Amino acid sequence: MQIHHINFVVEDLDEAIGRFERILGQSVQRRDGLPGRGALTARFKLGRVWLVLVQPTDASGAPGRHLAEHGEGFFLCSFGVDNLDATLGRLRESGVGLAGPPRQGLDNWRVQDLDPEYSLGEQFQVTEEVEDGD
Amino acid sequence: MQIHHINFVVEDLDEAIGRFERILGQSVQRRDGLPGRGALTARFKLGRVWLVLVQPTDASGAPGRHLAEHGEGFFLCSFGVDNLDATLGRLRESGVGLAGPPRQGLDNWRVQDLDPEYSLGEQFQVTEEVEDGD
Repeated sequence: MQIHHINFVVEDLDEAIGRFERILGQSVQRRDGLPGRGALTARFKLGRVWLVLVQPTDASGAPGRHLAEHGEGFFLCSFGVDNLDATLGRLRESGVGLAGPPRQGLDNWRVQDLDPEYSLGEQFQVTEEVEDGD
Repeated sequence: MQIHHINFVVEDLDEAIGRFERILGQSVQRRDGLPGRGALTARFKLGRVWLVLVQPTDASGAPGRHLAEHGEGFFLCSFGVDNLDATLGRLRESGVGLAGPPRQGLDNWRVQDLDPEYSLGEQFQVTEEVEDGD
């Protein structure tokens, strides 16, 4: 496993982009909507890891609820795998709790959330980048 | 910049190691004390990134205070750089707030905390791995 992306929830995406551009010394690479989660996102690529800023646009989505409960800050950490289905089989055999079915993330990311109760109360997940054309 | 390490504070290091070994499908690589911060640590290497679990041993250290205030979970994210002093010069010129002077981290890591007020209230930092013999 690698670390695939780390997400931080923010109140104001433009302001947060400016701060992280100054911290990281590089320009933001991508900006995307994520309507299924009720959010706008902006991404920086750091080595092989995406650092993702997430601004909720819908208070009832998962990012919106996280912002209301915890304020700005760490939202989730996703581990990258080559084969999500094989990994889910291994996780189930190991007794790791999963939260819901796999879902669509940004781009071609196929994402499975782990049960936060199993993992420090924080949201960890597993991501496979599905090849285009599959 | 790369992501160098991500730390999560835990109450019980052995129990957390077992959970993350099951999630990650790999054994923990390193266990170390970090007496200057009042903590025990355990590390997994994921690609080029260290995932570090931190169990406080001193309630007055930074990890202990974080655990008391926030409970288990995300503690900090550190960006790796080749030259810490050059990076600190750039950060100061960019108006990024720093917190205190550089300090010694695990191994040969030389660490500079950023001002949490500048970065979502979360602890971000910059790490240079100093060559042995310097």
